[in-house]
Amino acid sequence: MMRTRPLKVALLGCGVVGSEVARIMTTHADDLAARIGAPVELAGVAVRRPDKVRGGVPAELITTDATALVKRGDIDVVVEVIGGIEPARTLITTAFEHGASVVSANKALLAQDGASLYAAAEQHGQDLYYEAAVAGAIPLIRPLRESLAGDKINRVMGIVNGTTNFILDKMDTSGAGYSEALDEATALGYAEADPTADVEAFDAAAKAAILAGIAFHTRVRLDDVYREGMTEVTAADFASAKEMGCTIKLLAICERAADGGSVTARVHPAMIPLSHPLASVREAYNAVFVEAEAAGQLMFYGPGAGGSPTASAVLGDVVAVCRNRLNEATGPGESAYTQLPVSSMGEVVTRYHISLDVADKPGVLAQVATVFAEHGVSIDTVRQQGKDGEASLVVVTHRAPDAALSGTVEALRKLDTVRGVASIMRVEGE
Amino acid sequence: MMRTRPLKVALLGCGVVGSEVARIMTTHADDLAARIGAPVELAGVAVRRPDKVRGGVPAELITTDATALVKRGDIDVVVEVIGGIEPARTLITTAFEHGASVVSANKALLAQDGASLYAAAEQHGQDLYYEAAVAGAIPLIRPLRESLAGDKINRVMGIVNGTTNFILDKMDTSGAGYSEALDEATALGYAEADPTADVEAFDAAAKAAILAGIAFHTRVRLDDVYREGMTEVTAADFASAKEMGCTIKLLAICERAADGGSVTARVHPAMIPLSHPLASVREAYNAVFVEAEAAGQLMFYGPGAGGSPTASAVLGDVVAVCRNRLNEATGPGESAYTQLPVSSMGEVVTRYHISLDVADKPGVLAQVATVFAEHGVSIDTVRQQGKDGEASLVVVTHRAPDAALSGTVEALRKLDTVRGVASIMRVEGE
Ligand SMILES: NC(=O)c1ccc[n+]([C@@H]2O[C@H](COP(=O)([O-])OP(=O)(O)OC[C@H]3O[C@@H](n4cnc5c(N)ncnc54)[C@H](OP(=O)(O)O)[C@@H]3O)[C@@H](O)[C@H]2O)c1
Ligand SMILES: NC(=O)c1ccc[n+]([C@@H]2O[C@H](COP(=O)([O-])OP(=O)(O)OC[C@H]3O[C@@H](n4cnc5c(N)ncnc54)[C@H](OP(=O)(O)O)[C@@H]3O)[C@@H](O)[C@H]2O)c1
Repeated sequence: MMRTRPLKVALLGCGVVGSEVARIMTTHADDLAARIGAPVELAGVAVRRPDKVRGGVPAELITTDATALVKRGDIDVVVEVIGGIEPARTLITTAFEHGASVVSANKALLAQDGASLYAAAEQHGQDLYYEAAVAGAIPLIRPLRESLAGDKINRVMGIVNGTTNFILDKMDTSGAGYSEALDEATALGYAEADPTADVEAFDAAAKAAILAGIAFHTRVRLDDVYREGMTEVTAADFASAKEMGCTIKLLAICERAADGGSVTARVHPAMIPLSHPLASVREAYNAVFVEAEAAGQLMFYGPGAGGSPTASAVLGDVVAVCRNRLNEATGPGESAYTQLPVSSMGEVVTRYHISLDVADKPGVLAQVATVFAEHGVSIDTVRQQGKDGEASLVVVTHRAPDAALSGTVEALRKLDTVRGVASIMRVEGE
Repeated sequence: MMRTRPLKVALLGCGVVGSEVARIMTTHADDLAARIGAPVELAGVAVRRPDKVRGGVPAELITTDATALVKRGDIDVVVEVIGGIEPARTLITTAFEHGASVVSANKALLAQDGASLYAAAEQHGQDLYYEAAVAGAIPLIRPLRESLAGDKINRVMGIVNGTTNFILDKMDTSGAGYSEALDEATALGYAEADPTADVEAFDAAAKAAILAGIAFHTRVRLDDVYREGMTEVTAADFASAKEMGCTIKLLAICERAADGGSVTARVHPAMIPLSHPLASVREAYNAVFVEAEAAGQLMFYGPGAGGSPTASAVLGDVVAVCRNRLNEATGPGESAYTQLPVSSMGEVVTRYHISLDVADKPGVLAQVATVFAEHGVSIDTVRQQGKDGEASLVVVTHRAPDAALSGTVEALRKLDTVRGVASIMRVEGE
């Protein structure tokens, strides 16, 4: 039985993602209506530049007054695909106040203000959905929040930024250096003119905060996420990784501590074994590995960005929110009941791959080994290579707290016989 | 705000899956309560053998009268993990009649009677959820039904049976024959004493019917699914696959026809390129590849069976159904509005890898090639190998309707110069 009064959607932003949302809403209107149980109509589209031609969007729907649009009072769902903190944040809370639910793709805003937005949604009895904010088209938020709602998630580890995966994949397959690979990514449209948010891992850190909060049912703020970009990864690091049967990926890792009493979230480049499913994630694809107590190891893979993949995720949320409205209900809200503290990077247990330039004389290895021992870090393998009076020492450690590992590196730097630390890389996924 | 009256769950079956559902409900009661917003309690457990010791399940909850349990009237959710058609079917409909929603892991029943069960659920205003019925712990039904509800799915292709994947993986990696690999699977507990449902692909066919129905929003009955088991796959087939840079997997494939006017569902062994993500799915793992118009290519990977992974999926559904009840709402019901017809296997477009034993004399290849041409099948590659008066001819075709391909094979068998058809295998995933 189909309701005839249509549900009204206001679209805030009509750029890469928004234009695809508008297109699919128009071309697939009948399917959406059948799946929702009522027709759904585009009631208005807010943009910055009203005169830009927007194929497929009727000119009379376009407005530059986003605030008036969300205040109309007859809007059922506001889709926020403007991005950034303001005016997106104010528009979303205004939407709630005026009786609309919100679907957003805005990871930056959700990582920073997720808790207060959820509170506003709940106060006004509205939904806040944001599947598209993490890993684009890949269903991930919903599986974590709903499919795994009866399980205990212990670890989420993923490639959640397509730009940096594209760059690292190029470096791996072609032997290119970072800047050469970045140039290629820019030329092909995979990297923006200013790639900072991607390569310095601000984007991935926002996603890590969102994922950790959902996975562990606690609040994880952006500031809680340890962040290291991938601009310092070199061709030499890839060569070292190859020797270990590994490749290098920029990973977002959210973990529950072994004792269960705290969680951590971090983003940094790491070596992972070629046999790990994440190692074979190519180009700009994303993939997220989830370990849960009962379910075991799951992986979700797909396009992490792009207009139409992201629009797919947005529209899945629009359908869900519309169904909720017809049911006069709301979906699950924020779940932060565990209130687990977030530990700092120093407490994360990981492994280091350390490459040292050392003097080629007897006793150096003993000196170096002593430093590791003094920091309680045990060594897995050492490889020593001489090259004309100089030598290089490659040490791979066993698992130890990051603080002990970084303390070891600091102490190594102070040794006379250590000429330099050529590279340090964490090793994950074993 | 937590409601204090608990939601009541009746468990039908306490075997491999049911015992894990009971265990997790007990050990993780607090988490479940927090996520649902109300405590949830095990109100009764129906089994066949009342005297069997069931660790962790209080004896007073055990009953052999499943019917009385589902008729109690105070049950919120009935979890059906008995399996098979009867009494599961009658118990489920009785549960609906008595005001309970149902969570089931029963693919055989859902593939056969999904439509009538959905109708019964709707008639009584109850939910029917069954994430665990396909691919165990892997969130798949919910992503297809909800996350991709705003998209158009064109293809679902997956490894949905762990037993057969284990056997094929063994054959691939160790060069073992089918029966040797089956013995190993049985010894390790991956295959049941009677492996028919798995190796003859009845289990995978049931899952294909369920997936096709959900993906294409239409009804697909078990009889609509073309089914070929994997008992005839030989070590020689794997050798041929390797020469082509492929491996062999038992695939469930649900496709929308190119013109969009019909769908197909089938299960059979097929060669897939080693570069395809499904090729690297090892042991008893499952993985499902989904192609959607806007989202692109997605993959979902994880344990496809086992007590605790399956219980994880069951409990995710229990949480969802409980939340719906607290909202006095139901989740999405059957979606079969497209009413697309299901075409037969003959209309499926695929490729064949055909290995022929032929007489080693001039003109044979011309004869064989003529047969392909007469059936409108164009040849991609031919490889001819002589061995003492006999020769073998390996032909890989381009894409053609299965009817034309199988017609070609029939005609080849009738040629005097063709001594035998050594193997036929479809090629997918390109
Ligand atoms: N692009 C992706 O692949 C992707 C993937 C996942 C998530 N996301 C997220 O999706 C959101 C949108 O991304 P996008 O790539 O679509 O961005 P975009 O192409 O830059 O589009 C932004 C849109 O917002 C409009 N806009 C900007 N300021 C506005 C204002 N003050 N009032 C009204 N409209 C305003 C712009 O108007 P004009 O058209 O007039 O300039 C434009 O239409 C972001 O949160 C992003 O993080 C994007
Ligand atoms: N096992 C898996 O890995 C897996 C994965 C996905 C889906 N599933 C599905 O989950 C369901 C259950 O599978 P399972 O492996 O847990 O089966 P199982 O180990 O054979 O357990 C079946 C349970 O049902 C009980 N039972 C049988 N007939 C009954 C009746 N007439 N009345 C009441 N109880 C009855 C049995 O009682 P007793 O204990 O007294 O014998 C037993 O506890 C099936 O639909 C299966 O397809 C299983």
